[in-house]
Amino acid sequence: MTSQKTTQDPTAKIKRFFASSQHSTPLLVIDLDVIAANFEVIKSGMPAADLFYAVKANPARPVLERLVALGSKFDAASVFEIEDCILAGAKPSDISFGNTIKKPADIERAFKLGVDLFAFDSAGELEKLAKLAPGSKVFCRILTENAGADWPLSRKFGCELDMAVELMEQAHALGLVAYGISFHVGSQQTDPGQWETALSRTAWVFSELKKRSIELAMINLGGGYPAHYRDDVPDFEEYAKAIEASLCKHFSDNRPSLMIEPGRAIAASAGVMQTEVVLVSEKRLDADRRWVFLDVGMFGGLAETMDEAIKYAFRTEKDGSPSGIVAIAGPTCDGMDVLYEQTAYKMPLDLAVGDLVWIDATGAYTATYSAVGFNGFDPLKVHCI
Amino acid sequence: MTSQKTTQDPTAKIKRFFASSQHSTPLLVIDLDVIAANFEVIKSGMPAADLFYAVKANPARPVLERLVALGSKFDAASVFEIEDCILAGAKPSDISFGNTIKKPADIERAFKLGVDLFAFDSAGELEKLAKLAPGSKVFCRILTENAGADWPLSRKFGCELDMAVELMEQAHALGLVAYGISFHVGSQQTDPGQWETALSRTAWVFSELKKRSIELAMINLGGGYPAHYRDDVPDFEEYAKAIEASLCKHFSDNRPSLMIEPGRAIAASAGVMQTEVVLVSEKRLDADRRWVFLDVGMFGGLAETMDEAIKYAFRTEKDGSPSGIVAIAGPTCDGMDVLYEQTAYKMPLDLAVGDLVWIDATGAYTATYSAVGFNGFDPLKVHCI
Repeated sequence: MTSQKTTQDPTAKIKRFFASSQHSTPLLVIDLDVIAANFEVIKSGMPAADLFYAVKANPARPVLERLVALGSKFDAASVFEIEDCILAGAKPSDISFGNTIKKPADIERAFKLGVDLFAFDSAGELEKLAKLAPGSKVFCRILTENAGADWPLSRKFGCELDMAVELMEQAHALGLVAYGISFHVGSQQTDPGQWETALSRTAWVFSELKKRSIELAMINLGGGYPAHYRDDVPDFEEYAKAIEASLCKHFSDNRPSLMIEPGRAIAASAGVMQTEVVLVSEKRLDADRRWVFLDVGMFGGLAETMDEAIKYAFRTEKDGSPSGIVAIAGPTCDGMDVLYEQTAYKMPLDLAVGDLVWIDATGAYTATYSAVGFNGFDPLKVHCI
Repeated sequence: MTSQKTTQDPTAKIKRFFASSQHSTPLLVIDLDVIAANFEVIKSGMPAADLFYAVKANPARPVLERLVALGSKFDAASVFEIEDCILAGAKPSDISFGNTIKKPADIERAFKLGVDLFAFDSAGELEKLAKLAPGSKVFCRILTENAGADWPLSRKFGCELDMAVELMEQAHALGLVAYGISFHVGSQQTDPGQWETALSRTAWVFSELKKRSIELAMINLGGGYPAHYRDDVPDFEEYAKAIEASLCKHFSDNRPSLMIEPGRAIAASAGVMQTEVVLVSEKRLDADRRWVFLDVGMFGGLAETMDEAIKYAFRTEKDGSPSGIVAIAGPTCDGMDVLYEQTAYKMPLDLAVGDLVWIDATGAYTATYSAVGFNGFDPLKVHCI
């Protein structure tokens, strides 16, 4: 799978860029050709599904423009992301307002811009949608398990199945199009089997609503398809196969249309972060490990290292020389700004202040997470090539 | 203690401001008079200590200017914070570069600006300081326990005692002024007794160095003095008393000069955040709790709710009416953006979309933590009055 190979071996284009001249660090570089390659892998791996790129993974304008050119649709988390998509050339009818939590004014604005597809998971949100986006297509997000996900999504989104049935009936009664069901098995989901439970639950909602004469038309399979960081993950085709098997099992007679919302799987492997070693130190005279401090950390774009959840792959300019165990931390005065202390990482013993370190597969959920000015440091800079 | 009373009862000035006109939410308002009152409480509570305000807690220009006018000194986490302090009117000789992890170029720049007081905890950093800030005063940060802290600082900063002794001797040999020892007992430290262990450890380093004919002149007692959030905390005078008792015990004959670095205790209670309810929902038909979604969350300035560490106090415009258990979450599509799910919070049963909610004591570690644009949302706005 393209997205995986590029992770372990950054593209020639990115290598050339970093080699071409001095760059201030930290700097995130995005190779738009990898964005395109990942899009094609997923699109061709699941041709029956409408691909809605999860904008929050990486909303950089050139990324959105490239995806518009490829025919992508877009899953937006806020009205601001909707505006970004439109400015990048997307048709409003190709945008889903996928956040189940929306301010009334933002729903109104999205509807006026031409968006007519909205997520919800509660009676309160349905009331807003009926009033401010009348006649729109709505899909209800259901709760599901997040087992196997490196970045679980907790109980924040979704509702129980019997409630989903009630709400969809209510949506219909309110003049909205009771369009479909969505779920999310958790981000960086390493187990393709997790869609089976969710689809079995979805099928129950479909059949209950059919009994009430409401025919749903769509299943939103969500995101969760993983990127290749330090550890191996299944190829996208394994997810496609597992999902297809579950669809055959639960929807054999009447296949609904499908939406998928990959974000990480499209953007992560397209990005490489160049950072610099600020300090290598030890905590005691007979220390068994060194601490390596980089000029980027948890508040500079690597928020997903929280609880050491996402395990990035690092490269240094001295790779190949003898190495030893390290803890890796960021440059701020905050004790939480430690990337890895429990996970055993190794780096060259001759790593020194000023050496460059590259962090692969940092194209997703990095730049926009970075703090606006914590400890006085600027947010992460991004450059698309 | 002033800082505590204002937390539970926002100042008339803040109330007037919010009542005066419509404001977009979320918005953080800082009452500079509370900054000043908190400064005076701490200054008069420990008159022997030099007060270095921890800029990272809240680096807003008007906050820094007010503190300059009051005669505060400053603890800076980066060269950018040093520049901010100077632009706010601080003398470079009143600024401590308190981060033990500094880029060589940043040390050079700070030294050129006139800063001559630096923290370190490793041989690598000492080399940089000797070369780029020759003759400066340096203090070595030692490891200490963080028991009792709501926001512990882990093992990221500091070194073991025997190493501190070696490093200070080395500092002296390198032509630096071996000035003192620092430690940090953990942020939002609720146990005044925690300074005792740290001071006993500090005394050991002092005496070992004395044997090697190096007389240290200063103890940096760090920060950690708590703010009053939802739960009661000891008054500052209890910290001052406990520290004084430990100083008498360990440094009776030859009292060194003292530095303290309060940040949270000065800035937190000065801030009130005005936010808006985006949605109130339930997850099941027979739910025992509601979910309240605000337009600010973990990525919009409330990062310290991570693991529900800091427990903020909330007020709503309907307080007093019957209330029930709620989970509280932010507006983004990220499942991690949940403020409180385990901690039992209650809010009025008639709380509705669009209602205003105020979060007290949000003046510290909020605005600068906020993400630059996660999910397309703008960073938190701040207004000082």
